[in-house]
Amino acid sequence: MKHYQKKIYYHDTDAGGVVYYANYLKYLEEARTEYLRAKGIDLKELAKEGIWFVVKNVDITYRVPGRYADTLDIVSEITKTKNVSLEFFQEIKRDAEALVSAKTTLVCVTDKFKPTPIPQEITEKLTS
Amino acid sequence: MKHYQKKIYYHDTDAGGVVYYANYLKYLEEARTEYLRAKGIDLKELAKEGIWFVVKNVDITYRVPGRYADTLDIVSEITKTKNVSLEFFQEIKRDAEALVSAKTTLVCVTDKFKPTPIPQEITEKLTS
Amino acid sequence: MKHYQKKIYYHDTDAGGVVYYANYLKYLEEARTEYLRAKGIDLKELAKEGIWFVVKNVDITYRVPGRYADTLDIVSEITKTKNVSLEFFQEIKRDAEALVSAKTTLVCVTDKFKPTPIPQEITEKLTS
Amino acid sequence: MKHYQKKIYYHDTDAGGVVYYANYLKYLEEARTEYLRAKGIDLKELAKEGIWFVVKNVDITYRVPGRYADTLDIVSEITKTKNVSLEFFQEIKRDAEALVSAKTTLVCVTDKFKPTPIPQEITEKLTS
Repeated sequence: MKHYQKKIYYHDTDAGGVVYYANYLKYLEEARTEYLRAKGIDLKELAKEGIWFVVKNVDITYRVPGRYADTLDIVSEITKTKNVSLEFFQEIKRDAEALVSAKTTLVCVTDKFKPTPIPQEITEKLTS
Repeated sequence: MKHYQKKIYYHDTDAGGVVYYANYLKYLEEARTEYLRAKGIDLKELAKEGIWFVVKNVDITYRVPGRYADTLDIVSEITKTKNVSLEFFQEIKRDAEALVSAKTTLVCVTDKFKPTPIPQEITEKLTS
Repeated sequence: MKHYQKKIYYHDTDAGGVVYYANYLKYLEEARTEYLRAKGIDLKELAKEGIWFVVKNVDITYRVPGRYADTLDIVSEITKTKNVSLEFFQEIKRDAEALVSAKTTLVCVTDKFKPTPIPQEITEKLTS
Repeated sequence: MKHYQKKIYYHDTDAGGVVYYANYLKYLEEARTEYLRAKGIDLKELAKEGIWFVVKNVDITYRVPGRYADTLDIVSEITKTKNVSLEFFQEIKRDAEALVSAKTTLVCVTDKFKPTPIPQEITEKLTS
């Protein structure tokens, strides 16, 4: 799912009247999860096998604030695939307007948080 | 620790300009944890032994809203101790004013979420 | 909308492996908002007119824990309508199993958090 | 306050057993607020005058996961001051170990989210 919709409720906002800046990282996680699911990759099943994708870096830019009752559209794409890591580029939009953009690097790790090569089966699904 | 202090930041509030109602349950958890720690009960150590205290019921009343930059004082006491459960009464105050009060019932469970008697060692620490 | 669906992501859970107890209050808010919207009541528009529904009391019981990747179904109904207040009863289910139930009392207030009668137009929409 | 302490509770963690990645942005906000307060800058008073510092960009790197019951130490410093913006560098540590580091750019804006020069009085306090 390259497009993920997110409706904004009171718990998403702060007393500045806008979406709290940390909360966008939750929506980015949700959108990545659904993107991977659409590719046939189930993070819950992977976790049972001791394979996790953990966030190594986020570079996020805030342009326009989201507000209560907005419906946001999150567009996700994978921009890089390496041996042990993945890079997502995501944009959060309200209609045509880009509110937030983010580049997120995820690393494939074991239960002990040791980096491990992304299983070939996953790489194949990602590039299909 | 019968008194626990909590400072309110933007992430605690919502676009209504006040503390979001669900967030008080986080502060209640923090205050209970510190109350138990002051009695010599370490929830992290208990979890390693497969003993958890999970919330069964919360009855929470909101009187006056908390706001950004408030410093709140949470007063906690145990009002009931049974075989497998505990009851806390907690009040969240701003100076002399009571903002929120809550009665929380916790049940002692195993790793499988099965109710189990509160270990005697814990009961003794609670009543000391 | 009497039924509201909520998918559980990592940010909804805690290190106990289950949905964090305060987070259910967020889903209850989302479900009430959508319930009211389906009745033609738009909380954002009301706030502009200085009318807010604030939570006065929540009595919530946790039976079975929700978990990562669950899709929960929240069933909402209004069980009482008074001059200045409303009562919701809500149940959070995973398939046929009830995980959580909650009774929430909301009070109609002005911008100054003063209780005020629920506007007749709203009462009519609620009972339609 | 160049050092800010943060204790980790269940609501800070996720089902992966570690602190959820978005939550660190909350602690970074708390630490920046206390840093500014120690310099005599009160964000609540500034907001009343229509002056806000909003986050424009965060570049955050996660090295080692924080865990339940950790006490984290957040070290903050301002690394750049421009006409309308500020840059913070912050490090989140557990004892000597750096878990997370982040560079955050804040922009001074009016009530309408229009960039505006940082008031001279603020700049003086920052450099004192």
